Amino acid sequence: MELKQPTSPDWLPLALSRFDEVLIDHAHCEKKAAANALSLLQSYPEIPGLPAHMARLAREECAHLAKVLQLMNARGLVLGRDGGDPYAQGLLTHVRHGAGPRRLDRLLVAGIIEARSHERLALLAQGLTDPKLKSLYQELALSEDGHQRLFVRLAEQIEDKASVDARLEQLLEAEGALLRTLPLRAAVH
Amino acid sequence: MELKQPTSPDWLPLALSRFDEVLIDHAHCEKKAAANALSLLQSYPEIPGLPAHMARLAREECAHLAKVLQLMNARGLVLGRDGGDPYAQGLLTHVRHGAGPRRLDRLLVAGIIEARSHERLALLAQGLTDPKLKSLYQELALSEDGHQRLFVRLAEQIEDKASVDARLEQLLEAEGALLRTLPLRAAVH
Repeated sequence: MELKQPTSPDWLPLALSRFDEVLIDHAHCEKKAAANALSLLQSYPEIPGLPAHMARLAREECAHLAKVLQLMNARGLVLGRDGGDPYAQGLLTHVRHGAGPRRLDRLLVAGIIEARSHERLALLAQGLTDPKLKSLYQELALSEDGHQRLFVRLAEQIEDKASVDARLEQLLEAEGALLRTLPLRAAVH
Repeated sequence: MELKQPTSPDWLPLALSRFDEVLIDHAHCEKKAAANALSLLQSYPEIPGLPAHMARLAREECAHLAKVLQLMNARGLVLGRDGGDPYAQGLLTHVRHGAGPRRLDRLLVAGIIEARSHERLALLAQGLTDPKLKSLYQELALSEDGHQRLFVRLAEQIEDKASVDARLEQLLEAEGALLRTLPLRAAVH
């Protein structure tokens, strides 16, 4: 999928200058991604292939979380409370009511969050100078890129491709508009 | 920890004769264990070591879930809705209100569920005759055994050992009493 709005060029310098805050937010993002994969598995076990894919995805996000926590520990950082993510919360307001539309939208919103995370983690990978951090973020960005495609494929298990594409287009427009209204943060989103 | 009430000798023959149902329930148990680890990480990031331990635990439970789903797939079984677990629900009624007591009880109840799961998975490992299934259940039983100790160690990070032991004793008594009242099911618990 193609995001409608590239990240502002001001985000990367901010994120690099306050990288410790980004790292803590990143841990919370991986936790929420893992919890969301388990929640989708809980809610939609009937979608062919979804349980196995979500189990593997949750395992992978937990592995990323463990890596980020290790990095934090090495820098003397502690996790603390999750302050919430206005970006993800804003996107979730576009999830429609009603079992069918909700199911499709939850999958597509999860895919869009992965696509945006991929863009941001790839920017961090470009900007970071420490070789160990750089290679970790390259690895993490790559795996988020696979996840966005997974969610679209799962959506195509429940609706025809044209309907999926049309709804994805609407949600991508909404995501772009949301991004333009949110202030830049020293955070993944 | 030592469970107060051994599993009834009638459980294993029932579980083996309806193993497909046990397998599906087992997948749901691994999912709930992973989700609970992430929930504890979300709720109690301030407990030293808890975030890293819960991230690794959730990763491990998700890996178990993926294995069980693979086994189910090979047997032509699908996950379906989670029918709920009267055992875990019954235990959770013993979690006290108030932030401090609740925090201790959630850790200890998680440990007790792991201890009971260890006992049941070890019984399955003994009873199963298919060598591949037997070795998988031996492996899974062993890892649940490690988890129960982890939860008690984390509890000892927040309360002195005597208080932890006293509350654990009460909860183990409650668990034994609960087990005596619940009907036997073709399920892990």
